[in-house]
Amino acid sequence: MNLDGRPWRTVWADGSAVCLLDQNALPFSVAVHPCPTVAHTADAIRTMVVRGAGAIGATAAYGLAQAALLAPDSTFAANIAAASALLAATRPTAQNLFAGLAVVQAAITAEGDHPGRARQAAVAAARAFADDDAACCEAIGRHGAPLLTGGGVATHCNAGWLAFVDWGSALAPIYAAHRGGTRLHVWVDETRPRGQGARLTAFELGQEGVPHSLIVDGSLAAWMKRGEVQAMIVGSDRIAANGDVANKIGTYAAALVAHAHGVPFYVAAPTTTIDPDVAHGDLIPIEERSEEEVTWITGPTEDGTLTRVRWASPGVRARNLAFDVTPAHLVAGIITERGVVSASVEGIASVTRR
Amino acid sequence: MNLDGRPWRTVWADGSAVCLLDQNALPFSVAVHPCPTVAHTADAIRTMVVRGAGAIGATAAYGLAQAALLAPDSTFAANIAAASALLAATRPTAQNLFAGLAVVQAAITAEGDHPGRARQAAVAAARAFADDDAACCEAIGRHGAPLLTGGGVATHCNAGWLAFVDWGSALAPIYAAHRGGTRLHVWVDETRPRGQGARLTAFELGQEGVPHSLIVDGSLAAWMKRGEVQAMIVGSDRIAANGDVANKIGTYAAALVAHAHGVPFYVAAPTTTIDPDVAHGDLIPIEERSEEEVTWITGPTEDGTLTRVRWASPGVRARNLAFDVTPAHLVAGIITERGVVSASVEGIASVTRR
Repeated sequence: MNLDGRPWRTVWADGSAVCLLDQNALPFSVAVHPCPTVAHTADAIRTMVVRGAGAIGATAAYGLAQAALLAPDSTFAANIAAASALLAATRPTAQNLFAGLAVVQAAITAEGDHPGRARQAAVAAARAFADDDAACCEAIGRHGAPLLTGGGVATHCNAGWLAFVDWGSALAPIYAAHRGGTRLHVWVDETRPRGQGARLTAFELGQEGVPHSLIVDGSLAAWMKRGEVQAMIVGSDRIAANGDVANKIGTYAAALVAHAHGVPFYVAAPTTTIDPDVAHGDLIPIEERSEEEVTWITGPTEDGTLTRVRWASPGVRARNLAFDVTPAHLVAGIITERGVVSASVEGIASVTRR
Repeated sequence: MNLDGRPWRTVWADGSAVCLLDQNALPFSVAVHPCPTVAHTADAIRTMVVRGAGAIGATAAYGLAQAALLAPDSTFAANIAAASALLAATRPTAQNLFAGLAVVQAAITAEGDHPGRARQAAVAAARAFADDDAACCEAIGRHGAPLLTGGGVATHCNAGWLAFVDWGSALAPIYAAHRGGTRLHVWVDETRPRGQGARLTAFELGQEGVPHSLIVDGSLAAWMKRGEVQAMIVGSDRIAANGDVANKIGTYAAALVAHAHGVPFYVAAPTTTIDPDVAHGDLIPIEERSEEEVTWITGPTEDGTLTRVRWASPGVRARNLAFDVTPAHLVAGIITERGVVSASVEGIASVTRR
């Protein structure tokens, strides 16, 4: 998608370097973070220079291809194994990270660990993995755009291109519809506590020129009651076999509010997000994160100095669930790269990759 | 209620001085703001050293009594008139402010503007007005406490004693039940954008020793789904004749979420909050405030320096409704100083003061 008017991805290769759009600097500045070695690439994943399942997976794939390019012939297999272990240890719960490593590892193995051919195969596999992520998201956009016929669309958190290689999941139908000439206004939940809506989604939409308004999460109901919202689309971190959807905290409340106003609530996600081994949403483990995410806020002052200020009363204890589960009956449809399906056992089974 | 273990009110008289608990300093420090003249008192209302309908009304009443105490006999009537005009111009939309001035003015007028007797009458009337506010809230606590039988209670914004002279509205039943030995855990919505929950309600509950957890507004639904919340109580800025309730933005969403989980949703307010001239909630005008309340956040740094940091992506436009309206059918009951009534034309009429 566009940044300052020219097309970008979140991750790409430049010779043997892995290049990342530095997401720790966004939205306050746009910077490229080049990783000259695998150690740098692993460190960038760990420190969240790159975030979002799709973007992390592609970075890991490019990182293993980088290892192949940089490894001398004499220690090739050992270097690949070490790099794979290093990259795998960065974010142990990110499913796409392991998928990215597996694809590149398979390409190398298929060449019998012959360094010359394996390097070429690894680079091609990493590029194909990243291209596939972008193509899936582009297809989500194509399938989802016809659901948006104009007017207001609400979203929560950031499931845009910054979380993938390109396009995004929840935002892809919005981008596709906007580029296709549909007049939309996006209502952006700020998404407390970390502000992915206020910071990343608002930034993405601004760069693409999609009209939008930032709102506090608690006000979505009031805007819906005023008739300003005709549809809602969110992303997902995991979809259970029955269509229950885990996503950023606040999603479930938004789904209840949409249901009360008759606003269709869609979930957009690549089919890799489906976990067919989880029967329903109550079985999805929900992470509880540091209470300081709620009680302190970091941002730049007027002069640009990144500063942390206290938001809550000193000494107060906070609870901070990072995700919640939206039951399938509140979901109007799940938009995947294979089409739009119902949030049901049958719908999910029809698009699940095994 | 208690601050650092001893009882306080938000406003009181000390000789001819009007003393205020400085709410601009809370919750980061506890300070008394003495107002030696009417000009100081008016300035304190204007700059929100005191906030909340009940507290503002009592401050205005004490301010007009202060004018009577300080006015020389020779210019008594003129000084009273000037002080009344000055105080009335501070927060033009605060209904209780005019009620406080009217009560003290009536006491002065009843003494035929005789300075000696009028001073005594004004001081007594101001004190009675403040005592009545505290007594109303204490009665709300007495009527509401039996609705809380233990477990989790959620609240939104700050309708505690800091918004009144003492006790508060939504928090009064919680304080009364807690003091009566009911084991409660309060779930405190942080209340974006201004954080009255994170800052004032959390502070009040901590000072009173009521167990509580601060949460982001969007997570209330997830906590209710987990069975952590047995009741919810909020305050109100205005109640329509049919029981529709205007309150801080986010209240309507919380009411929808409570309804979806079968959690009774109560509104606590003195009957002065009822506006019998407004037939239903859609007729209540809703203020939209500065978008900077959403996009910037002010708080102390680690070393205590009050600092403003950017929360949202630079240049993003925000919408900031300050209030919303909860329809009567979502309200399980309205807790007033005259008892608990249904949110209906009949219920409201049975307690309305004309």
